[in-house]
Amino acid sequence: MTTENVTTETVTGETDLDRARAAFQRELLVEGLLVATEVPGLYGRSGVFEDIVDGIDRVVVAAGPGDAATRLRFPPVFPRSSFERTDYIASFPNLTGAINTFAGSNRDHARLLADRADGQSWDRHLEPTDTMLVSAACHPAYARYTGVLPEGGVLLDIYGFCFRHEPAIDPARMQAFRMHEFVTIGDAAAARAHREHWIERGLEVLGRLQLDATPVIANDPFFGRAGKMLAANQREENLKTELTVRLYGDLDEGTAIVSSNNHLDHFGVNFDIRTAEGEVAHSSCVGFGMERIALSLLRTHGLDVAAWPTSVRERMGI
Amino acid sequence: MTTENVTTETVTGETDLDRARAAFQRELLVEGLLVATEVPGLYGRSGVFEDIVDGIDRVVVAAGPGDAATRLRFPPVFPRSSFERTDYIASFPNLTGAINTFAGSNRDHARLLADRADGQSWDRHLEPTDTMLVSAACHPAYARYTGVLPEGGVLLDIYGFCFRHEPAIDPARMQAFRMHEFVTIGDAAAARAHREHWIERGLEVLGRLQLDATPVIANDPFFGRAGKMLAANQREENLKTELTVRLYGDLDEGTAIVSSNNHLDHFGVNFDIRTAEGEVAHSSCVGFGMERIALSLLRTHGLDVAAWPTSVRERMGI
Repeated sequence: MTTENVTTETVTGETDLDRARAAFQRELLVEGLLVATEVPGLYGRSGVFEDIVDGIDRVVVAAGPGDAATRLRFPPVFPRSSFERTDYIASFPNLTGAINTFAGSNRDHARLLADRADGQSWDRHLEPTDTMLVSAACHPAYARYTGVLPEGGVLLDIYGFCFRHEPAIDPARMQAFRMHEFVTIGDAAAARAHREHWIERGLEVLGRLQLDATPVIANDPFFGRAGKMLAANQREENLKTELTVRLYGDLDEGTAIVSSNNHLDHFGVNFDIRTAEGEVAHSSCVGFGMERIALSLLRTHGLDVAAWPTSVRERMGI
Repeated sequence: MTTENVTTETVTGETDLDRARAAFQRELLVEGLLVATEVPGLYGRSGVFEDIVDGIDRVVVAAGPGDAATRLRFPPVFPRSSFERTDYIASFPNLTGAINTFAGSNRDHARLLADRADGQSWDRHLEPTDTMLVSAACHPAYARYTGVLPEGGVLLDIYGFCFRHEPAIDPARMQAFRMHEFVTIGDAAAARAHREHWIERGLEVLGRLQLDATPVIANDPFFGRAGKMLAANQREENLKTELTVRLYGDLDEGTAIVSSNNHLDHFGVNFDIRTAEGEVAHSSCVGFGMERIALSLLRTHGLDVAAWPTSVRERMGI
């Protein structure tokens, strides 16, 4: 939020950008493409919106590695033991989703219900479970590769829901959204090459959808003071490139809809993954933000899918 | 668990049923259809497993109401305000997933990280959010219909991930799984008719997959002592019918893979939904347990999909 190019601020603190985001959200809800809930950043999707997402996925998969990759699909929750190894709680505590449940007796439950009947919070009657919400689509995958990789490493195709606790009006900032990732785990050169390849290839995918995207050197939104240094390092070492689309004209610097990232040996060290040659594995991934690409299409080609360019619809198969 | 027909118990407490479940789980993992995680009941899915689920879905959709239904898709988390209205915390507290996150300062985060470095739990540094894991695929939908229904009510097609905190070895008891539901909200007669229709129609769907299913009058696993009465009422009023398949021969009474349920006016009252005639709305739903149907197919036709009956594969499009 700090890098936003805020143009006009009213007395209420509302900016042109805030208004543009709220207006886009309203359009999507009025058109019935998204369904409002009582929580900002959480939406139901209409059938039409889902058709768009599935159409995007066909274009993504067509550009992808096909049978050369191992397809893996994970549910939206994953083991706390894996979450711990990602170090996510150190870097993005504010986006985290930890899962609690009730594990007490009949009598404990009666106490919970008494609090509830009094209009009080009943969370104190819950306990942490051994699961967490999936933070990035690839996070549940690394634990599978603890040990020694096959010769040449592995290439993965992963598609699933991610959770980020960041309530927002901007429809492009959802709390729950899908990410389709292609991930390599191998030696340092393979991780670098995969990342480079997917900057170009990602631009091609977006070109096929007739989206006007720009590659931008970027950093993750690391938390707090220590996070500022991590972010600076990530930029300096050129580890993250985002493909951005301007959903709100020149009111901000654009919205990242694809991200190509070199993790270096972060997951290799934390999940104890080694190459066939005995080195600590490196990894990199490209992530396609499916809802954000859908929103870019709706913003670029209009809310009426029937009126989109024929070539785009044909490629998407919708 | 209490109704299980446990046959032979060893000194360690392990029964034939336990062994059959563990053996099936092992087969699925060895074959690579499911991917183990460190948490019981949480699995990654292989590409082949996903193809099976997608194939089942084609058969389900082909039997469904098509354009007569409104398609809605929800992410795996939904507003706590909606969760509250379902009364799930009263009936199934032990299956619940409440989401916590970190909302503190830099200094609070430092304390969290200090606990973590000491090998202690860091959950006490988290706070409840306003979201919960989706308990049943249809639960996020009802809030949308607060108010007066259109003439004739609504028919919904909902597909999404559900969460139940119940760690288990049985691969058919997953903590996160998909449910495809057809839901009606309307008058009492419409809710009854929908439920009845889908007992027959559900059996047809399973017949097309050449699964040997039996309709059984059932009840939800309501929690605790008070829950026993709720369960008895549900059976007495014949509100829930499960279509079950025997995954483990006569070692248990079968696994429910489809469930057709009349909610009476439960959601109508709690979400304040009224018919065009001004009555409190009734609702009913059929839920297809996608992973459980996939497991039934693997158990019935074998782990090698290529060797399944041609007609089944053709209907599934795989």
